Amino acid sequence: MSVNADLKKERENATFDVEKMTYFIDGSPENTKRRRYIQRLAVKDHDAMKFKPWAFRTREEHYETVVRKQVQVARLSQQLGLTAQEINTYEETFQARENNRIGPRSGMFPPTIEKQGTKEQKNDILPLIKNMTILGCYAQTEMGHGTFVRGLESTATYDPKTKEFILNTPTITSMKFWPGSLGKSVNTCVFLAQLYTQGKCHGIHAFLLPLRDIDSHISLPGIEVGDIGPKIGFEENDNGYLRVDNVRIPRNNMLMRYSKVLEDGTYVKPKNSKITYGTMILSRTFLIRWSGLYLSQACIIAVRYSSVRRQTEILPGGPEAQILDYQTQQTKLFPLLATAYAFTFAARAVEETFNRINSQIELGNLDHLAELHALCAGLKAFTTENAAAGIEVCRMACGGHGYSHASGLPKIYTTTSALCTVEGENTVMMLQMSRFLIKSHSQMKSGKQLQGFVSYLGNRHPARSSMQNYITLQCLQEAYEHRAARLIEETAKTLKQHEAAGLSSEEAWNLTSAQLTWAASSHCHAYVVKMFVSMVTMDNIDNDVKAALTSLCMLYGLHGIHEKLGEFIQDGFFDSDQVDSLTSTMMTLLSKIRPNAVAMVDAFDFPDLQLGSCLGRYDGNVYQALYDYAKASPFNKKDVLDSYHKYLKPMREINSKGGVFHAKL
Amino acid sequence: MSVNADLKKERENATFDVEKMTYFIDGSPENTKRRRYIQRLAVKDHDAMKFKPWAFRTREEHYETVVRKQVQVARLSQQLGLTAQEINTYEETFQARENNRIGPRSGMFPPTIEKQGTKEQKNDILPLIKNMTILGCYAQTEMGHGTFVRGLESTATYDPKTKEFILNTPTITSMKFWPGSLGKSVNTCVFLAQLYTQGKCHGIHAFLLPLRDIDSHISLPGIEVGDIGPKIGFEENDNGYLRVDNVRIPRNNMLMRYSKVLEDGTYVKPKNSKITYGTMILSRTFLIRWSGLYLSQACIIAVRYSSVRRQTEILPGGPEAQILDYQTQQTKLFPLLATAYAFTFAARAVEETFNRINSQIELGNLDHLAELHALCAGLKAFTTENAAAGIEVCRMACGGHGYSHASGLPKIYTTTSALCTVEGENTVMMLQMSRFLIKSHSQMKSGKQLQGFVSYLGNRHPARSSMQNYITLQCLQEAYEHRAARLIEETAKTLKQHEAAGLSSEEAWNLTSAQLTWAASSHCHAYVVKMFVSMVTMDNIDNDVKAALTSLCMLYGLHGIHEKLGEFIQDGFFDSDQVDSLTSTMMTLLSKIRPNAVAMVDAFDFPDLQLGSCLGRYDGNVYQALYDYAKASPFNKKDVLDSYHKYLKPMREINSKGGVFHAKL
Repeated sequence: MSVNADLKKERENATFDVEKMTYFIDGSPENTKRRRYIQRLAVKDHDAMKFKPWAFRTREEHYETVVRKQVQVARLSQQLGLTAQEINTYEETFQARENNRIGPRSGMFPPTIEKQGTKEQKNDILPLIKNMTILGCYAQTEMGHGTFVRGLESTATYDPKTKEFILNTPTITSMKFWPGSLGKSVNTCVFLAQLYTQGKCHGIHAFLLPLRDIDSHISLPGIEVGDIGPKIGFEENDNGYLRVDNVRIPRNNMLMRYSKVLEDGTYVKPKNSKITYGTMILSRTFLIRWSGLYLSQACIIAVRYSSVRRQTEILPGGPEAQILDYQTQQTKLFPLLATAYAFTFAARAVEETFNRINSQIELGNLDHLAELHALCAGLKAFTTENAAAGIEVCRMACGGHGYSHASGLPKIYTTTSALCTVEGENTVMMLQMSRFLIKSHSQMKSGKQLQGFVSYLGNRHPARSSMQNYITLQCLQEAYEHRAARLIEETAKTLKQHEAAGLSSEEAWNLTSAQLTWAASSHCHAYVVKMFVSMVTMDNIDNDVKAALTSLCMLYGLHGIHEKLGEFIQDGFFDSDQVDSLTSTMMTLLSKIRPNAVAMVDAFDFPDLQLGSCLGRYDGNVYQALYDYAKASPFNKKDVLDSYHKYLKPMREINSKGGVFHAKL
Repeated sequence: MSVNADLKKERENATFDVEKMTYFIDGSPENTKRRRYIQRLAVKDHDAMKFKPWAFRTREEHYETVVRKQVQVARLSQQLGLTAQEINTYEETFQARENNRIGPRSGMFPPTIEKQGTKEQKNDILPLIKNMTILGCYAQTEMGHGTFVRGLESTATYDPKTKEFILNTPTITSMKFWPGSLGKSVNTCVFLAQLYTQGKCHGIHAFLLPLRDIDSHISLPGIEVGDIGPKIGFEENDNGYLRVDNVRIPRNNMLMRYSKVLEDGTYVKPKNSKITYGTMILSRTFLIRWSGLYLSQACIIAVRYSSVRRQTEILPGGPEAQILDYQTQQTKLFPLLATAYAFTFAARAVEETFNRINSQIELGNLDHLAELHALCAGLKAFTTENAAAGIEVCRMACGGHGYSHASGLPKIYTTTSALCTVEGENTVMMLQMSRFLIKSHSQMKSGKQLQGFVSYLGNRHPARSSMQNYITLQCLQEAYEHRAARLIEETAKTLKQHEAAGLSSEEAWNLTSAQLTWAASSHCHAYVVKMFVSMVTMDNIDNDVKAALTSLCMLYGLHGIHEKLGEFIQDGFFDSDQVDSLTSTMMTLLSKIRPNAVAMVDAFDFPDLQLGSCLGRYDGNVYQALYDYAKASPFNKKDVLDSYHKYLKPMREINSKGGVFHAKL
């Protein structure tokens, strides 16, 4: 089918070469080439396996489909020897947003064994995970206990007589609840529990717990395991619950790289109790990346659809306009498009920081662990929250059709909104960032030179912006740093005031916690702006690409100021005229970005399969696609449903005493 | 089961009598009594009919359940002769958020005939609707055309030879798409189409179009009708599509109370073309009410759960705290609780205005139609948008469990989020409010005394707030009116500037449209604040009730200022010290509201059935309920699913070359 004429014209009007923008996003033309090769493979395999369309599956079919897909992913990665990143690329297309990883790819299960297992344990277990004998998951969250890990109630009590641990979930609130794939898929889990030995509790430790028979998959004695029931998304995941009643496992099933329990029950402490944070931090870097990824997908769908959709004339009697020409639509979508780029770049920066600091950690240098932990916690919260909210704006910007699963947007939203809670609830994450900031602030006050991403706190900030009519990126970045520094300063002051009034530091913390999250959020915002600016001001970027990105970066900065204006002007940093100038520049930028909008989303270069959207198709043939979707709906297999004969017709017959309106009725 | 101890204590600590608050919300003790009678009936009937739990139904079962329910609602209202409001009350409990109305209660179908049909048409048709011979829906929206009604492409061409209209959906974009119940339930629709007669188009008119055989329910020749496929919510609704190919209907099937086509094809114009707005405005008043209703439900669930849920110690080594004690949780929930009250009261004010103005309209006086239209459009957008966003905050404030359908929150959200698009897309609605505001502003400038809800625009507003440390409601209301008046003034100026620069008024409008929506939104906000203030400052309210409501009203006002601070301070209306005072008062209010939070949500007095939530139960036994929900999940009927034997086991057998980790595996 030919490409929609409006969309074709949009592509002709772009001021830059889309291919070059794609190379920039991917990092190099070679990366683009390799990515496309893998994605084409995914599309080919997907077509060949003839899955039922996502929206028409029952929950049972969702689950069965994802199992089939995971087996294929495992098989393929064995056959082709793909790198971890390549498998991700394959999976993100082949199994887009079908959120279940079973077997070798199962989330935190393999890395936990990798990080916390002894050499022998790793040698024993990792091959069995790889060959899918052990199907595992990471079982931490309990029904009554989430982000606060120390509060977990599950217990592992060592019995020196038999050299076993006795595992229990002693209360209803202590049953494991939510772990992905736990309900039906796995036969083993990493079980997090309070370790008791020699009559003393030593806190949370990780144990390998068999749940089902390896061959028959029947659940083992003492184990009650099942699915937690339907959710708004993650239809395909058997997030599970687990009750454990006096189940005994050998001593060697405790992951003992750091902490140990000796045969006689003696507990041996780890050298550093924070060493186990690594896996958690790693998963948060993924979430940051996904925020950019999913927001990009939503932007592609909304921008392409807004070019095809025509609604209401702008001039009376004229043709109906592309809805992308309405300023209100631009005001919704373009700042989000800018955010999608911003998060994509920020994710890359975080990933680089993670790799750098993590390799130090692996060598035993924990100096930067706290910084890395704060960065990933704060950015995880900042990006997932803003991505989820932004996706919902994209969805609503598609009108009614955005509500249909045909648009793909509801699933993108439900996937992203879950990221706000998993791997650390966002408010708690933001507060972890705050703690680091307050600590850094206090170090600065006592004369220490700050390093890393908080170093700007030590800079002298002018009390008024020097911004002129011509706004520079540098000037925006300064505004964000000024605001963050001011909010952190104010927050530290509030904390001190509460303490001076006689509150304990914990009570003072609680009574300042809203303000603490605002300060942390403003810091994250400044970080994202800075990373965006540093990307677009890099050397050796194609000029047209650079110009287009600069407009987006500028819009990202201006829009953020507009949204949180009070925080930028309460202290008079910008005066009223400067604010007017910021707003009018923002409005002018919308018109400037307008001709590039479609090219900007095209540059993300996702295959249609990955978008899974009638509205976001590359060819723009949205209406035929919506019609095909409707016709294929299982509800339409029959013209007349049984419920008519069961309920509606009898009711009419009871009521009716003849009388019809006209012959045709 | 006994009531959770924390929740019990919360109820004992309230500073007011919940029962009296409920009377105040309902309007009188008699209203409360009657409502409870109806709700108990609904609960009894619901229990007796033994429906499958909502979350476990397939889509087919969702639909069949709602059909059964609608037949019961129709039967009951016939038997007991309930008023329209009583049926609503019954339905809102018996069929909470199952969004399909089939038969006599089918949305805009009966009122359209009521309003636009001739006396004869009404006599003929209404009884058939009542006895469920005619099952109808209102078919306006097309695949390519939503809120902009004039853009509809469906046609009705009069043929004087046979005295019939020939109906068509000539293009793919003109097929009807989205009308509720259209796909499978109805046998007739009101079909909106461009009327052609004597070679001329006379714009959109309404026609009665038979779709299915009254007896067999089989779709008629020339009619292609079906379901549009799965959506994120409205699972139980067969929102439909409809293609019409040269279908002939008698001349008399045109609704001819206002416009007419005579036998020879002569078109007779209506006296006033806006007369048909009434039905649309009426439905928007419902949406405003539902915004308050659904946000209340979400607040009840989140606040009760936050009293039961304990997480993380505040003091080290102390017990884990109720999460409602965390300031961050209070900052999320209490402003929303205040908003739920605000919207409930605003909805009542809008309803009273509607009744007053509508009775004038029925008498032919259209003087206030434009005002009413603007009010309902703007408030519909303002309340649905804020309610939907607020519900999502409540959902996320419940952590992971908020994501499960067990919480009831996802369904409350998907229902409310749909309201942002139906009955007029929110941005378009806001712009309709803007148009009225700009017109009023210009009338004011030319010396006219403004009346009704825009009268404050004519007041003299002080340039600086006179607010002292003790903040009054009056002072808050003034701030909102000042801000709205300023934004409207600024927006009018921008419009003029664009026109002065040579743009057409339409282009100027488009280039100002973002600003126009901000101005309209600030006006709506001022209206809601004003209505809230007028409710809590009424005479004859119980003192304790009044005190509790005053705190909420104050919080609503302060929180709104905090959220949009820039708009309140850009012109220096509040200085920096006043802002600090606003913020610290807001924080103090959180602590003040804390002991009343549970009583405040209890006062809404919804039966558990209506909430449909494991987390929001009146008795607070949330964990047992979550466990019961999980165990009942259809996924748990079998311990081992077929997919294990089909996919996972064979993969292992291929991979595995023996080797197990330990005996128990």
